[in-house]
Amino acid sequence: MTRFRVDLEYDGAPYAGWQLQPNARTVQAEVEDALQRLLGHHARVYAAGRTDTGVHARQQVVVFDTDVSRTEKAVRDGLNAHLPSEVACVAARVVPDDFDPRRAPHTKTYRYAWLVRPSRSPLRRGRCWHVRRPLDVEAMASAVAHVAGTHDFSSFRAEGCTANHPVRTVEGASVRAVEDEVWLDIHGTGFLRHMVRILAGTLQVVGTGRKPPEWLAEVVAARRREAAGSTAPAEGLTLMRIAYDPEP
Amino acid sequence: MTRFRVDLEYDGAPYAGWQLQPNARTVQAEVEDALQRLLGHHARVYAAGRTDTGVHARQQVVVFDTDVSRTEKAVRDGLNAHLPSEVACVAARVVPDDFDPRRAPHTKTYRYAWLVRPSRSPLRRGRCWHVRRPLDVEAMASAVAHVAGTHDFSSFRAEGCTANHPVRTVEGASVRAVEDEVWLDIHGTGFLRHMVRILAGTLQVVGTGRKPPEWLAEVVAARRREAAGSTAPAEGLTLMRIAYDPEP
Repeated sequence: MTRFRVDLEYDGAPYAGWQLQPNARTVQAEVEDALQRLLGHHARVYAAGRTDTGVHARQQVVVFDTDVSRTEKAVRDGLNAHLPSEVACVAARVVPDDFDPRRAPHTKTYRYAWLVRPSRSPLRRGRCWHVRRPLDVEAMASAVAHVAGTHDFSSFRAEGCTANHPVRTVEGASVRAVEDEVWLDIHGTGFLRHMVRILAGTLQVVGTGRKPPEWLAEVVAARRREAAGSTAPAEGLTLMRIAYDPEP
Repeated sequence: MTRFRVDLEYDGAPYAGWQLQPNARTVQAEVEDALQRLLGHHARVYAAGRTDTGVHARQQVVVFDTDVSRTEKAVRDGLNAHLPSEVACVAARVVPDDFDPRRAPHTKTYRYAWLVRPSRSPLRRGRCWHVRRPLDVEAMASAVAHVAGTHDFSSFRAEGCTANHPVRTVEGASVRAVEDEVWLDIHGTGFLRHMVRILAGTLQVVGTGRKPPEWLAEVVAARRREAAGSTAPAEGLTLMRIAYDPEP
């Protein structure tokens, strides 16, 4: 038996998220279909984490096991030949049989992107949350500092979250303007359901001047979902990177 | 009569280029359809230049005339409401009645982008020419210096080019690596049919080591299309900017 680690990139727009679901197109189903064609047998894939409907990934990490002999290059190129254009295998490597992408120590980095200008952008459609009025980026940057560190993030936890407890550690979070976009970059060891999108929706309230930056500290302290802003649209969110320590 | 200048952004993938054609979907047809709905009358639009099938634009400049009274904002937002998601009006401004986007002195900037890595990229599909093996960017950068200045560009002129003569001035051209992409940025007062794509295809020959950088000088001097490389795919090309001097 050989365990392969596969790093995937995908455009989340046409998918009902990562995880298998009856009667819905999911990224996991595409990958398992492609593996079936490549290996001639069904192989279950396990991911470092789920992504929601419409959320993109530059690097999602998954594993599968097989007894069929294939080189790393054959797995990468074979998957790319069988996967639809919205999903690609960026790298495939043999890893130890006990490497578990969800449990192995790792840091996840997400980016939430706003497009800030009066008109929409055809070349970036489906990749950003389009807002027509300017955002106060300095206020958002000062606000986001309040989520760094270890907190009870119940205010940023969507209904249906299956996590055992609401305490998470945000190792770093920043907001900055990049041309006509605003980026929230955040990394940590784990996130609750919709946590980054609820944070983005809450920062938006500060960016539009409806609340001051210090309001974020109140929202964290409240530990109630109703204290935070609304959930920002999925299309602005990308899982950027999963860094293992050590890399298997 | 009022003349409006409209700056457009578009994803060229679904279009048979800018210009109206029978039985083909073109950007010009989309814009004239949207104007018809916005103004209640047909308005012909004139562009600074054509773009080919599949070529993108971050800024294409067009004009139209109307007797209907509309503010600049109403034109911009109305066009965006009526245009399909692949085309947007980034700005609309009233300009002098005699402003002609094709004849007014201007500089056009194009970017040709390669994606250089073993796997394709779902998040950048249709935006780059995907090549699997490394390119020698230094050699390409040194090669492209040979096209700067005023030359007879017959080697870089596609069949069917309707220009009166093959002499053009390239004001600047550079090649550089940006993460896993390679960008050719080129600007000048005018370009021949497929000129940038033939240049990209020719630079590719240097980048893969099949010819030395100095070969570009020979290709320019030859003044025969057969001397140059093949035409690079349209999807890697974007019309980035049209700068008028003075801006109307």
